Amino acid sequence: MPNLLILTSDAEEYTRLIQSNQLPDLKITSEWEDCDIVLGEPKLIREALPRLSTSKWIQSIYAGVESLMDSSLRHDYILTNARGVFGELMSEYVFGYLLAHEKKIFERYQAQQSKKWDRFASGMLRGKTLGLLGVGSIGAHIAEVAKSFGMKVWGFTRESEASTQVDRYFHGSNLLQFASGLDYLVIVLPRTNDTNQIVNAGLVNALPSHAIIMNVGRGNAVDEPALIEALNENKIAGAVLDVTAQEPLPEDHPFWRTPNLLLTFHTSAVSYPEDITRLFVENYHLYIEGKPLNYQVDFERGY
Amino acid sequence: MPNLLILTSDAEEYTRLIQSNQLPDLKITSEWEDCDIVLGEPKLIREALPRLSTSKWIQSIYAGVESLMDSSLRHDYILTNARGVFGELMSEYVFGYLLAHEKKIFERYQAQQSKKWDRFASGMLRGKTLGLLGVGSIGAHIAEVAKSFGMKVWGFTRESEASTQVDRYFHGSNLLQFASGLDYLVIVLPRTNDTNQIVNAGLVNALPSHAIIMNVGRGNAVDEPALIEALNENKIAGAVLDVTAQEPLPEDHPFWRTPNLLLTFHTSAVSYPEDITRLFVENYHLYIEGKPLNYQVDFERGY
Repeated sequence: MPNLLILTSDAEEYTRLIQSNQLPDLKITSEWEDCDIVLGEPKLIREALPRLSTSKWIQSIYAGVESLMDSSLRHDYILTNARGVFGELMSEYVFGYLLAHEKKIFERYQAQQSKKWDRFASGMLRGKTLGLLGVGSIGAHIAEVAKSFGMKVWGFTRESEASTQVDRYFHGSNLLQFASGLDYLVIVLPRTNDTNQIVNAGLVNALPSHAIIMNVGRGNAVDEPALIEALNENKIAGAVLDVTAQEPLPEDHPFWRTPNLLLTFHTSAVSYPEDITRLFVENYHLYIEGKPLNYQVDFERGY
Repeated sequence: MPNLLILTSDAEEYTRLIQSNQLPDLKITSEWEDCDIVLGEPKLIREALPRLSTSKWIQSIYAGVESLMDSSLRHDYILTNARGVFGELMSEYVFGYLLAHEKKIFERYQAQQSKKWDRFASGMLRGKTLGLLGVGSIGAHIAEVAKSFGMKVWGFTRESEASTQVDRYFHGSNLLQFASGLDYLVIVLPRTNDTNQIVNAGLVNALPSHAIIMNVGRGNAVDEPALIEALNENKIAGAVLDVTAQEPLPEDHPFWRTPNLLLTFHTSAVSYPEDITRLFVENYHLYIEGKPLNYQVDFERGY
């Protein structure tokens, strides 16, 4: 009879949702020292980890699990993260901001405020090339929506070429070649040692001057001074950042004063208990049958 | 050897594009009295119509051909309009504004201006129901993109159920039932006698109070005083209008002062000569082979 410990700020809702699934043999416990399974937020789990010595499987409710990667922490358990549930939400964010840019939604609002019936032209997504820096399940969903808008999709990955909606893949030393053909660069990378400041001055300068950079992954991927310089000097047309190196963004951070930069506040995709419970239930059935779990994290790779 | 007369404000570009297709036997003429085929803007064609007595086929570069419907005008020619080329552009507009609403893009911009790192929640398109009032080729494309965002799509049409992406069709007296289940009402109707003020107080009041109305068809479909009252009294959450009964919108029109209303200026889909030329070339081949042309307008129905 596996004991489940729930370590989230909305534990009551998770308890209710998981109990409603009537999972065989599962017992929800509040005993940290005697649990087989943990479902929770990586940062809470990290703090509790020394006391969770009996846990065999830990399910993160987020995609990002970097706080559990430190080599000083124990890695003698199966860690699964949340995947396949953020693609739709991320796509809504990405296309919301790309369309706001192309359809000139802010400029048209200004025209309305000035009572000006002004028929200036829109741009369009159709025919443009969207580049995904990182093509996991989120990137694959973004690619699918991009196709429905008649776009071309390029992808840069370490090795994988899993999404069939990507028209052209790039790897390794072809990063600048990838960047030079893009209208939009969308960063969907996890935080790992390999992704630190991958979007540096060289990459930003390789983009066409009409390009837009969007980061919905993790703040570590962007060399922020290089991005600020590129925006101040109009080397690219704009940027949209949902994540930054420091969050919350400090009050005196230059991003608050950088032109053609839209900031949002790590809200591009939130974790809905209904989605995560669905994913946990699937994994629980695999767990009690002794089968390999979905969405296992590789502690070496970091994602 | 068919003579083609081009009646558009960008006739030079159309001439260049059509000539580059090297269509068999086609001669481009500037003689109004001796043309077999006319390609042009409906309003220019309407003025010229008395002198175009030899024309057998007229291709409109727009979807809307209401200016050629008057029963006082000759209807002894084949009229074809532009179809199948606006769906992608209309979808970009529709989802741009729906996502701006759900993702709170204007509110987040305000937070950024106030230097507030404020994680208020977004809404989402996923799981919501989009209702198409009119399901032609434009509605079908909007339905396809809606599906890629995980939405449900309902359609209200006179008879047709052509798009397979529509989950549920409504007709005739079921208009209010259709409205009552929607999160977003998207109007994609042509201007005909049947569509005049179809969106009246009864229909607006049948919508849920969180609903958004969007009109990308023609201004005649909306009872404007009823919409203004509904917005002033928060009976619906908002409206986005690309078309109005009078265009340009008069300076003293109450729409300029109506809350939760976004106005754009008949720019949701423009007619690109490349798209229209492609469609004309297809139809020209049918024409010289004596086959039925694509996109024929029914003078009785008005579209």
